[in-house]
Amino acid sequence: MFSISLLPIGSELLDGRVADTNSRFLSEKISLIGGVVSSILTVTDDEKTIHDSLSFSLSKSEAVIITGGLGPTTDDLTREVVAKFCEKPLLKDEASLEKIKELFLKRNRAFDPSNEKQALYPETGFIIPNPVGTAPGFYIIHNSKLIIALPGVPKELYAMWDDSVIEIIKSYFKSSIKRHSLGFKTFDLPESVVGARINALEIPTNIFVSYRAAFPEIEVKFSAEASQDLQPFIERAKEAVGKEFIFTNNLELSFPQVVSIRLKASKKTIATAESCTAGLIAKLLTDESGSSSYYLGGVNAYANDVKVSALDVPEEIIKAHGAVSEIVAEKMAFNARVKLKSDIGISVTGVAGPDGGSEEKPVGLFYIGVSTKEKTEVKKFIYPGSRSVVRTYAAYAALREILKLVS
Amino acid sequence: MFSISLLPIGSELLDGRVADTNSRFLSEKISLIGGVVSSILTVTDDEKTIHDSLSFSLSKSEAVIITGGLGPTTDDLTREVVAKFCEKPLLKDEASLEKIKELFLKRNRAFDPSNEKQALYPETGFIIPNPVGTAPGFYIIHNSKLIIALPGVPKELYAMWDDSVIEIIKSYFKSSIKRHSLGFKTFDLPESVVGARINALEIPTNIFVSYRAAFPEIEVKFSAEASQDLQPFIERAKEAVGKEFIFTNNLELSFPQVVSIRLKASKKTIATAESCTAGLIAKLLTDESGSSSYYLGGVNAYANDVKVSALDVPEEIIKAHGAVSEIVAEKMAFNARVKLKSDIGISVTGVAGPDGGSEEKPVGLFYIGVSTKEKTEVKKFIYPGSRSVVRTYAAYAALREILKLVS
Repeated sequence: MFSISLLPIGSELLDGRVADTNSRFLSEKISLIGGVVSSILTVTDDEKTIHDSLSFSLSKSEAVIITGGLGPTTDDLTREVVAKFCEKPLLKDEASLEKIKELFLKRNRAFDPSNEKQALYPETGFIIPNPVGTAPGFYIIHNSKLIIALPGVPKELYAMWDDSVIEIIKSYFKSSIKRHSLGFKTFDLPESVVGARINALEIPTNIFVSYRAAFPEIEVKFSAEASQDLQPFIERAKEAVGKEFIFTNNLELSFPQVVSIRLKASKKTIATAESCTAGLIAKLLTDESGSSSYYLGGVNAYANDVKVSALDVPEEIIKAHGAVSEIVAEKMAFNARVKLKSDIGISVTGVAGPDGGSEEKPVGLFYIGVSTKEKTEVKKFIYPGSRSVVRTYAAYAALREILKLVS
Repeated sequence: MFSISLLPIGSELLDGRVADTNSRFLSEKISLIGGVVSSILTVTDDEKTIHDSLSFSLSKSEAVIITGGLGPTTDDLTREVVAKFCEKPLLKDEASLEKIKELFLKRNRAFDPSNEKQALYPETGFIIPNPVGTAPGFYIIHNSKLIIALPGVPKELYAMWDDSVIEIIKSYFKSSIKRHSLGFKTFDLPESVVGARINALEIPTNIFVSYRAAFPEIEVKFSAEASQDLQPFIERAKEAVGKEFIFTNNLELSFPQVVSIRLKASKKTIATAESCTAGLIAKLLTDESGSSSYYLGGVNAYANDVKVSALDVPEEIIKAHGAVSEIVAEKMAFNARVKLKSDIGISVTGVAGPDGGSEEKPVGLFYIGVSTKEKTEVKKFIYPGSRSVVRTYAAYAALREILKLVS
């Protein structure tokens, strides 16, 4: 087992504004390749502090990953500090510089010379390419210890981990200990319930079970040394959690991505009619490239007049039952399908809050309508929470109804 | 301004299993009473590591808050390590011991002697009562520096902060030094450009400038001791950055929130017609409660047929110019406004990618149409990037056009 210290840099991590998702990501990834994080030291972007922290972190482990401080502004000091720490001059990587200039060109922006700094790295070190942003990272071996510097932007760090960092670490530690992992993702159960159901199985301690909640999805992951067969435990866990809550065995896929893949495969088309979610379902359905093969369009019928004029919901029905009602959801789904000539029509109408709730129709109440040539059905849900929670949950609940039709 | 280091202890914080919510809570609370967190050092429960980490943390600030390691098990080492560090014996607090025994009685459990340990604290230190759990905390002043130890269970820590810790810190620092901060937020400039323009002003070093990028918004914050007037520097910074890029002086507000507030105040209504963003603009416009006062609804016209059938864009026009064209954006905005009877119609049509781009119409090309009773205008944009970047940027660019109409 090898040990790595993490050194996140940035004042935004110290005043409570931003959660340090990078360290959590790295901790998990490092444990998956058989390493352990021995410390996480978060500090502000001050030269002496970073220098001392690097020294402290290296005293506690065999490698340090610095995150942040690689950008173009004067408070981005990582390159300078590491170079000084290793007593090396900074070199300019021409390939990185070209790539940065190209990006500016593509976006029709004048190149600002402050960005040249982002192509610097300490002598005897190596550039780590950044496939999704401007600032590359670098690594250097100093006194037989490995120092890696990565940008603080999570999506850049994630991409660089997959592309390069995992291999750099493995080859540095000549990692012979191979680990593997398997898992699944759930929707519509609280994390505590998923956890309790799996804990009751008494999984052996050499299998590491981890959970990650990204509302409203929960990821469950089992990992162990490669010689350990995980399949039987995964099967038991899925049985215990309840298969109806599990939407994928592929931890790389989100719920909307699973729905997108199935819709593509089904060759069916879909139209949306959204009231309280106002476009969120449509947005989720089109997050993936190629969504035009199934998504035709939809109506965000937020005001009642629009439900009447654009979706032909009879005004009398809204008057008699209210906009948040079973019959309105039914009309919305049916008419969206017929008007837009799709195979499936999906609708949502509800009370997202925080205002507008009543005893009869509380915040968190919503109806989902699903219409196909064969039939039109409406389901009622109550899921109280903040406005954002209600809207997100309602959109996911609608996606689940779609998934049922195309599975 | 006073500085505090945080020292969270626990292996569960180092393998990605548990997010360190305590540190985020403390960081925010400390900044609210005029302090600053100078480092957060997360380490595993090993005696030497905790000792060295305490020493490091005290070298970086005037006080340290240790969280975790106060429980009854053998890997709970905080009391022992702090006592050794301060070269003091451990004393037993009889009142705490009684309270712990009482709790066991209340819960109908036999008292296990291992729990006696939780009533220990270093000589010359003071017990910090725990109103919601068994383990009390303590504090001690060593070499004129303040060491506070609190349990790692979030709800206990939160309660103890409110009950006692805030007062201990305030009275230790006789908190007379107050800090304040001012700032603004920008859209549509890269962070490097914002940084370069502000750096050119040579702001005095006692004013701390920080940046935070959350695509596509950038936050710029100036902070200093309360006696320092920040206003003149903020004004110069805004001038230098370019006022047209600044959308708010309130760091609590996002761009969509600013648009929502202005739309409410304007008493104008709006309708959307979205192709490549397919509902994202509508979703952003309705994120805030009360959005029904301005947002009527809209059409997500993803397929060309829907542009024709639901938005009356003439088929010949799409054939002649393509769906991604100035004239189609114009018709979409105009017809959305007229059909939905709103004051403003806003439209987007573009190539979100990653597929579907051509030399003539590359990924990142999009048109925004804005229609009012007075006129209908279309603007062309090119902003290459990932699908998600293009869609988010296009939605923000549309929000900016709306903002111009209601400012």
